[in-house]
Amino acid sequence: MEQKYDFGLIGLGVMGRNFILNVLDHGFSAAGLDLDAAKVQALKEESDGQASFATTEVKAFVESLSTPRKIMLLVPAGDPVDKVVSSLKPFVEKGDLIIDGGNSYFEDSDRRIEELSKEGLYYIGAGVSGGAKGARLGPSIMPGGDKNAYKLIEPIFNAVAAKAGVDGQDSCVAHMGSGSAGNYVKMIHNGIEYGLMQLIAEVYDIMHNGMQLSNQELGHTFQEWNKGILQSFLVEISSEIFQRKDELTKRDLVDVILDKAKQKGTGKWTSQNAMDLGVAVPSIDAAVSMRQLSALKTERLKAEDMYPRVEKDNASVLSIGDVEHTLVFCYIITYAQGLSQLIAADKEMQYGLDMAKICSIWRGGCIIRAGLLEDMMQAFARDASLQSLLLDVEFADLLNRSLPSVQKVLQYAMMHQIPGLTMSSSLNYFFAFKSGFLPLNLVQAQRDYFGSHTYERVDMEGIFHTEW
Amino acid sequence: MEQKYDFGLIGLGVMGRNFILNVLDHGFSAAGLDLDAAKVQALKEESDGQASFATTEVKAFVESLSTPRKIMLLVPAGDPVDKVVSSLKPFVEKGDLIIDGGNSYFEDSDRRIEELSKEGLYYIGAGVSGGAKGARLGPSIMPGGDKNAYKLIEPIFNAVAAKAGVDGQDSCVAHMGSGSAGNYVKMIHNGIEYGLMQLIAEVYDIMHNGMQLSNQELGHTFQEWNKGILQSFLVEISSEIFQRKDELTKRDLVDVILDKAKQKGTGKWTSQNAMDLGVAVPSIDAAVSMRQLSALKTERLKAEDMYPRVEKDNASVLSIGDVEHTLVFCYIITYAQGLSQLIAADKEMQYGLDMAKICSIWRGGCIIRAGLLEDMMQAFARDASLQSLLLDVEFADLLNRSLPSVQKVLQYAMMHQIPGLTMSSSLNYFFAFKSGFLPLNLVQAQRDYFGSHTYERVDMEGIFHTEW
Repeated sequence: MEQKYDFGLIGLGVMGRNFILNVLDHGFSAAGLDLDAAKVQALKEESDGQASFATTEVKAFVESLSTPRKIMLLVPAGDPVDKVVSSLKPFVEKGDLIIDGGNSYFEDSDRRIEELSKEGLYYIGAGVSGGAKGARLGPSIMPGGDKNAYKLIEPIFNAVAAKAGVDGQDSCVAHMGSGSAGNYVKMIHNGIEYGLMQLIAEVYDIMHNGMQLSNQELGHTFQEWNKGILQSFLVEISSEIFQRKDELTKRDLVDVILDKAKQKGTGKWTSQNAMDLGVAVPSIDAAVSMRQLSALKTERLKAEDMYPRVEKDNASVLSIGDVEHTLVFCYIITYAQGLSQLIAADKEMQYGLDMAKICSIWRGGCIIRAGLLEDMMQAFARDASLQSLLLDVEFADLLNRSLPSVQKVLQYAMMHQIPGLTMSSSLNYFFAFKSGFLPLNLVQAQRDYFGSHTYERVDMEGIFHTEW
Repeated sequence: MEQKYDFGLIGLGVMGRNFILNVLDHGFSAAGLDLDAAKVQALKEESDGQASFATTEVKAFVESLSTPRKIMLLVPAGDPVDKVVSSLKPFVEKGDLIIDGGNSYFEDSDRRIEELSKEGLYYIGAGVSGGAKGARLGPSIMPGGDKNAYKLIEPIFNAVAAKAGVDGQDSCVAHMGSGSAGNYVKMIHNGIEYGLMQLIAEVYDIMHNGMQLSNQELGHTFQEWNKGILQSFLVEISSEIFQRKDELTKRDLVDVILDKAKQKGTGKWTSQNAMDLGVAVPSIDAAVSMRQLSALKTERLKAEDMYPRVEKDNASVLSIGDVEHTLVFCYIITYAQGLSQLIAADKEMQYGLDMAKICSIWRGGCIIRAGLLEDMMQAFARDASLQSLLLDVEFADLLNRSLPSVQKVLQYAMMHQIPGLTMSSSLNYFFAFKSGFLPLNLVQAQRDYFGSHTYERVDMEGIFHTEW
């Protein structure tokens, strides 16, 4: 074998094959490895005539690559990553780079970086978002780790990543920061994704079961929204989903899909880690809760019969515009929570994150891409030390203007008993964040009362305790 | 040294000394150990003339106890527990029992049980609730682990625990289940505690900053509430807190306490573990979030200046009764979430929990004791397989009757921009739980659209995927 390939990828599922085809499209050569011969064959067919090589043999794969080797893994998080890394060790050499493109838990990446650095190997945890289509046409890529290691892969990632910005010249990839920064940023991306998806589901519930809009009207509404401030991938695909027919029954497809949502756990990790950091992300927590409640279909049906039903009347008090403003408001709050968690994680982990850059690379390719990210990028460009989007004057103005609609929509939902856990968590986060006073003086008094946990005072420094 | 003592306790802080005094009150003899001579001296003085012994020497302490020894630890969770256990090992003998009475993480207890059983030692993780006063006069005790090991300590725990029930004959202690069951039950207890405390804080905010009740009126209101369906320790102490004067300024003490609430982490553990189990506990999540938001005092004051202030008018639409019904409703939902988490943990961990018994021992001594627990105990007595309090007909009736008040109060809070994250999370949990349909069909459609994650259908079995 004479030719050496620029880039190697392990895990030739649809996403992996698409990523390779994307790499080939940009003039690089690439090799693929999978233990499943059918997938190897599929890549051979799909990349026919291009500078590529596919195999089921680890040794042949590694030897086919030019050094320093750039080997990317698109395999499930957890054990599979460790197993693949182990299988590579006998063949790779000092200076080679292994890139984990899966949704690995950030602490796993920190461990792997440390282990492999002892053997002179580079390791990068790189979040990749955009699904199979994104992998083919341009994903958003969030690599972290050693900056020199990143330089090795930078030309390829710059070429294959989605493009954003007014002139479409900004590549949706950048070095996020040290260590596991890439995985952490991707985890937050997914937490925000959970929040946005649930928010869309909740406004769908209000418009469909409350305002009685048909799926066709919903499809049209989302299509219109996607031309305005709500322009985003999730709004766009929702519009398509509402208009899709089921091939089996010719009914609207959305109506035949069961209302039990599954999860792979990255949203959950976001919430759990936020709690460890001491950061409040109630909209993301709520989205996780709603997926869990959705699974209780049997109990929900039983409960529905035990409680009086509510007539869904009086929907005429709401306009589509009110619902749009509500979704804008809750979108912003959800991004704000995720971004605040990133700021806190950066302090804790010393990643060296650049918030404007993160917003920038989320503008294209990824699941949470949205027009609003351009404004968020600008907010952090105005003030790199901004602690929360809620403290940016332009977002404050936007939130203020949307607020009356949010109150109207949530009042309607509450009176008609339509669950709005994520919307109301967003609204109450906003109320709490802008409350100079919160009633947790009472909580501290209670803690001191029963547990002697002490308290601080409003009028003098120090730690105090009362003998209650 | 001739006399052998019935019971040994390590960690002679206020809680530990009080626990020993409680044991002595019931006719048992007891020895205490602490490395701090001042604390040893304090116990000697406080237990003057009773059958007790206190020392700073591990060896003397262990040798003073009758075998099989019953040694309880009241030391901070984590490393201190492991250190104390290690220090005991050279002196204890096979068949001795070590009881951890702190808020240890349940997985730590499982590990310690396994390690110590190899050496023939018994280990019990026992949650203890009630604070210093409870330790002195009767706490609620939640021991788990080997049932034969529990028999060794049962007479002492039965004697010292709080008493509940109509005739005051039910001891608030029982063997919770195998392994770390005791720590798990206590963790859930604390999660519910977080929820209830935050709910009380939120109704305080509405009544104080909305309805303009004085602290004196609040104290009176809580005092009245404590005579009715809301009768509970946290309502009782809130009444006292509102009526307490600050000794330094003679102002109402609650007004000089800073509104930043701290946390020791057990509420957080509850939320994090609920997510691992796939159980929704949004009211507890919300309480954790609010403690975290309370810490952002600087940001909150800054934000308050950026957003328009709201006039708190029109409070006359609300009655104290509406607020009482709201608190009842949200109390029930919060207990329901914690109890559902216990049911799920029991399935996962095979603890062998008895839900009626858990409600029973929470009726006295502990921080979440409340009149409603008698009703919860009866609900689980009626149906031991009850999956949620919301599926019990009597609680369903109570929730239904309270609902109009909850809607009125939350509408008032929302329109006056008073944060009600935990209240609204409780209400929306209720709405979602009793919704036979939830809009997460759309979430599943989105997941299948961008990640080929497949979906189930409403009209046939199987797993489906659409080429979108």
